[in-house]
Amino acid sequence: MEKNVLLQIEYDGTGFSGWQRQPGIRTVQGRVEAVLSGLLGQDVTVSGCSRTDAGVHAKAEMAVFRADVPMPCENLVKALNDRFSGRPENPSEDGDIRIVFAKEVPDGFDIRGQVAGKTYVYSIRNADAMPVFLRNCRYLVKGELDVEAMRKAADHIVGTHDFDCFRAAGGNPVETTVRTVTSVEIRTSEAIDMNGAVSEGRDVFIEVSGDGFLYNMVRIIAGTLVEVGLGKRDPDEMKEIIESRDRTNAGHTAPPQGLCLEEVDLSVQ
Amino acid sequence: MEKNVLLQIEYDGTGFSGWQRQPGIRTVQGRVEAVLSGLLGQDVTVSGCSRTDAGVHAKAEMAVFRADVPMPCENLVKALNDRFSGRPENPSEDGDIRIVFAKEVPDGFDIRGQVAGKTYVYSIRNADAMPVFLRNCRYLVKGELDVEAMRKAADHIVGTHDFDCFRAAGGNPVETTVRTVTSVEIRTSEAIDMNGAVSEGRDVFIEVSGDGFLYNMVRIIAGTLVEVGLGKRDPDEMKEIIESRDRTNAGHTAPPQGLCLEEVDLSVQ
Repeated sequence: MEKNVLLQIEYDGTGFSGWQRQPGIRTVQGRVEAVLSGLLGQDVTVSGCSRTDAGVHAKAEMAVFRADVPMPCENLVKALNDRFSGRPENPSEDGDIRIVFAKEVPDGFDIRGQVAGKTYVYSIRNADAMPVFLRNCRYLVKGELDVEAMRKAADHIVGTHDFDCFRAAGGNPVETTVRTVTSVEIRTSEAIDMNGAVSEGRDVFIEVSGDGFLYNMVRIIAGTLVEVGLGKRDPDEMKEIIESRDRTNAGHTAPPQGLCLEEVDLSVQ
Repeated sequence: MEKNVLLQIEYDGTGFSGWQRQPGIRTVQGRVEAVLSGLLGQDVTVSGCSRTDAGVHAKAEMAVFRADVPMPCENLVKALNDRFSGRPENPSEDGDIRIVFAKEVPDGFDIRGQVAGKTYVYSIRNADAMPVFLRNCRYLVKGELDVEAMRKAADHIVGTHDFDCFRAAGGNPVETTVRTVTSVEIRTSEAIDMNGAVSEGRDVFIEVSGDGFLYNMVRIIAGTLVEVGLGKRDPDEMKEIIESRDRTNAGHTAPPQGLCLEEVDLSVQ
């Protein structure tokens, strides 16, 4: 009995060459398909809502597959997570995928058409040095960031604009570069290390929500905001950058390991 | 001109088979020696204060070496960290060692003889599921831990005792199994995920300080305290376990990835 099943997938992007299946290369889609196919004894193809790049993380990749699934969804989750869980001989690579939930969805469910909104968080350690434990999930920025200036610049991003200035070459072709960014929030917190102690510096988190994002858009926004925070650009320059629709006017592309797909809103779940 | 140099070394133990050099195997000592030898153009041997096991982390491994070091210590730190820093093609393994400081110490400085005290932190995620991002630095304990009971049990550990009950087989021979534990503190905090959001469950950190520790001692203490926290043992049983001097009376050995060497006090620095 064939079912359409929606998965929420969490992954540490460090050990993957991104989401999208590529022959002979370790990718999230490839690994999920291999494990699902092995478990269900049939070739399974998974469609995801976001093709994250190498090194980029996700707490909420949404993906759908169609297959003959003989067990209830909660048993499927357990069986998959058993297969994804770390083996002691290879702790750094295994265990880097976890299925958060699985649920049946109607026939003809088109994951990409269902995405009403996404939220990404870009994480920065603003300090003189990067603790080794955070090297795969933070961008180290030395020099104190002026967060108020970053917030002022971020306000220019919110709204419906042509965001061609924040689009990298190399992504999939798009029909339009107009997107709606519903919010850009910048939070700061003490620098907490991996075992709960407070360490030198602080963390800055840029949370961006919108109806969709162009290729590398959040990383280019983060890089541009960092340049504002370091005083290299005026906050109001952001308005001109967007109006120019020219990638060369925006800032650098912040590195992948700071980025995480935090949340996906589906119009029907 | 030969110098004795003391290093504070931070490492993510995930990708290492522990501290101690072993031919053909990736260890922290082996990697530090290889990088130092390459940088200084001479064979360098490093002596560390703690032989951590595979998967165990350190923020403050202290190690000393003697070599002809032509540059000032701060330049040595920069040159070493450049060599330890991550290469993009292998992000998960490289960048897992960082030199915190280097300083010259007197001739005949014996690192093991200088250790006046050590602090370890054992980190637990007390929740139904482990986020993939924390899998290499937490022990997942399901079922709510009774932290007050754990604290009561921990009080029995503080003091000078024969701790043979908390010693695993396989360590180096020791002259005595009497040690002084100066404090065992148990902190709790909200479960903060890698990009600053609060997630399900909470964290429990067991901080143990003392003049020295037997093989696997902190991990066996952590395992025993977890069993108390889960209601499988009475807090006052801890007193009898210690008095029995019998490993089989204590609890399980908590897994390595929760353990971190947090601080080392040297009597002369």
